[in-house]
Amino acid sequence: MLAAVNSDAGSLVSLADIRAAAERIQGVVLRSPVIALPHPADPDRLLHCKAESLQPTGAFKLRGAYNTISQVLETAREKGIVAQSSGNHARAVAWVARRLDLQATIVMPEATPRPKLEAVRALGARVEIVPNRERDQRAAELVAEHGSVHVPPYDDLRIIAGQGTVGLELVEQLPGVDVVLVPVSGGGLISGIATAVKSLRPQATVLGVEPELAADAQQSLRSGEHTAWDPDDTYRTLADGLRTPALGAHPWQHVRRYVDDIITVSEDGIRSAVRHLAVAGRLVAEPSGAVTTAAWLERDLPSGRTAAIVSGGSIDPDLLAQVLRTG
Amino acid sequence: MLAAVNSDAGSLVSLADIRAAAERIQGVVLRSPVIALPHPADPDRLLHCKAESLQPTGAFKLRGAYNTISQVLETAREKGIVAQSSGNHARAVAWVARRLDLQATIVMPEATPRPKLEAVRALGARVEIVPNRERDQRAAELVAEHGSVHVPPYDDLRIIAGQGTVGLELVEQLPGVDVVLVPVSGGGLISGIATAVKSLRPQATVLGVEPELAADAQQSLRSGEHTAWDPDDTYRTLADGLRTPALGAHPWQHVRRYVDDIITVSEDGIRSAVRHLAVAGRLVAEPSGAVTTAAWLERDLPSGRTAAIVSGGSIDPDLLAQVLRTG
Repeated sequence: MLAAVNSDAGSLVSLADIRAAAERIQGVVLRSPVIALPHPADPDRLLHCKAESLQPTGAFKLRGAYNTISQVLETAREKGIVAQSSGNHARAVAWVARRLDLQATIVMPEATPRPKLEAVRALGARVEIVPNRERDQRAAELVAEHGSVHVPPYDDLRIIAGQGTVGLELVEQLPGVDVVLVPVSGGGLISGIATAVKSLRPQATVLGVEPELAADAQQSLRSGEHTAWDPDDTYRTLADGLRTPALGAHPWQHVRRYVDDIITVSEDGIRSAVRHLAVAGRLVAEPSGAVTTAAWLERDLPSGRTAAIVSGGSIDPDLLAQVLRTG
Repeated sequence: MLAAVNSDAGSLVSLADIRAAAERIQGVVLRSPVIALPHPADPDRLLHCKAESLQPTGAFKLRGAYNTISQVLETAREKGIVAQSSGNHARAVAWVARRLDLQATIVMPEATPRPKLEAVRALGARVEIVPNRERDQRAAELVAEHGSVHVPPYDDLRIIAGQGTVGLELVEQLPGVDVVLVPVSGGGLISGIATAVKSLRPQATVLGVEPELAADAQQSLRSGEHTAWDPDDTYRTLADGLRTPALGAHPWQHVRRYVDDIITVSEDGIRSAVRHLAVAGRLVAEPSGAVTTAAWLERDLPSGRTAAIVSGGSIDPDLLAQVLRTG
């Protein structure tokens, strides 16, 4: 099921915004390493994996969250912060709040798995559990009620600039990069990375990667029309971080401007990639973080030095065990 | 079963040797990241894990191998290289040989785990499998026969200097480090690290970690007498990289000079540590690489900023799956 999205967001993040974000997050966020992953069929063919899974909260989300919160610190101290998320963004916001001694309220949908909920609570955040479809509304209510700082997961220029620091680092670490593979969900990560990479190395190709089962962004980019998929469809993929039904309004503007194409991967491909990253790269990746490796393993890509963003590593231990056994 | 070792090795590696090694390996070996691992009971209590598991060959061994081979390149080109190892050293030597286009023969004991053996073959090295007790003798025979360059796993000053670069990097990355935990087998790694750490930060405590089932180095250091254990005993531990029955002669001199103490961990503790590193640190560690985390989880340690060397990540996928399921 498809639907056109009514989106209007004029301004784009600049390289200067991303550089400013990089200064803000320095010393808090890990400059994640780039790990050379050999191809199963040829040890000399390498995928350069930027391991955002090694961030203190297990995903890149810390970059945008810290870049945003550190710019509104006074209000945040006085009125607290509010975020809605069932996963990595929630954990990132809770982690930053703990570090900066701020009150955080995280609105989480009823469907949130218990371990993710406990991880956020363990960091000291207040958790409000609401019916799945009331999550955004409840966050907006809390912000209106208390004047709290709202830290949205992707549809925000400060978030996009923060995530863009991944691209800035990548070009420094791998100056000759030709192809950059980035997971796509709400689009904050690829918007920032594509801005950085295309500004610093215009000849590089930036490709988004989505599960076949949640290919709304591919549909949008290829048709030229900002499109949403039904969550009943997108929720079928194992890649639980990539189920967002549409790009955000700001990300859509960045994606149509900077991203060369968006490609898709199969569910089996995602499982194989999680396994290969663990066995050959010694990296624990969650399914959403492994889609870029899956694309490298199962799709024809432009030739040249190829980098993959391994965006996160918060995988259910039982799922990882299952994937390791079926190799 | 214990036996005194007849060891005589006068000279020690210096900080200058380690700095020279660091220059040689630059651009070949990963400057491995330091990952903050939270304690299961307290998210603010952190273990700073230096993730040598992320090296291209899955372990620190690349450092010593490259430092050694790059100094004898002409002979190596002409006569090839020979090494004996149960795994990670073998893979490192094979990797360097492939990179420098050298002929390598690796003598491996029968007990070598399959993934380690396959990894060495995939890199194009010739593999000779021998009974566990014959590996050193067979390597010596090959060297005598062909005049090849011998790259021993630990009992060599160039190897020790190469492994010492881990300590050099650690003190740069974590200048206020108070306690450094290092896995101990033949002793090359801890010899180099202890030399670097004690030279740069004498007030830091350097502790070796061994499995209870292979505690020959603890026995040696505490008794003051260089002691070997029967391989039938040491081969009981899951930590297949730490089964070496005694410290090498050169390592023994470094350990008695620089190492504060050697502590032991249980087999259950090793399993728990492998699991915790994967789930909370997104790091795939092999049992030998996880003993330092096990020590942090199950032993009383001196207080202060604590670092653990996670020395390698070449774990059998089935074992990792098993450990993940039993959490």
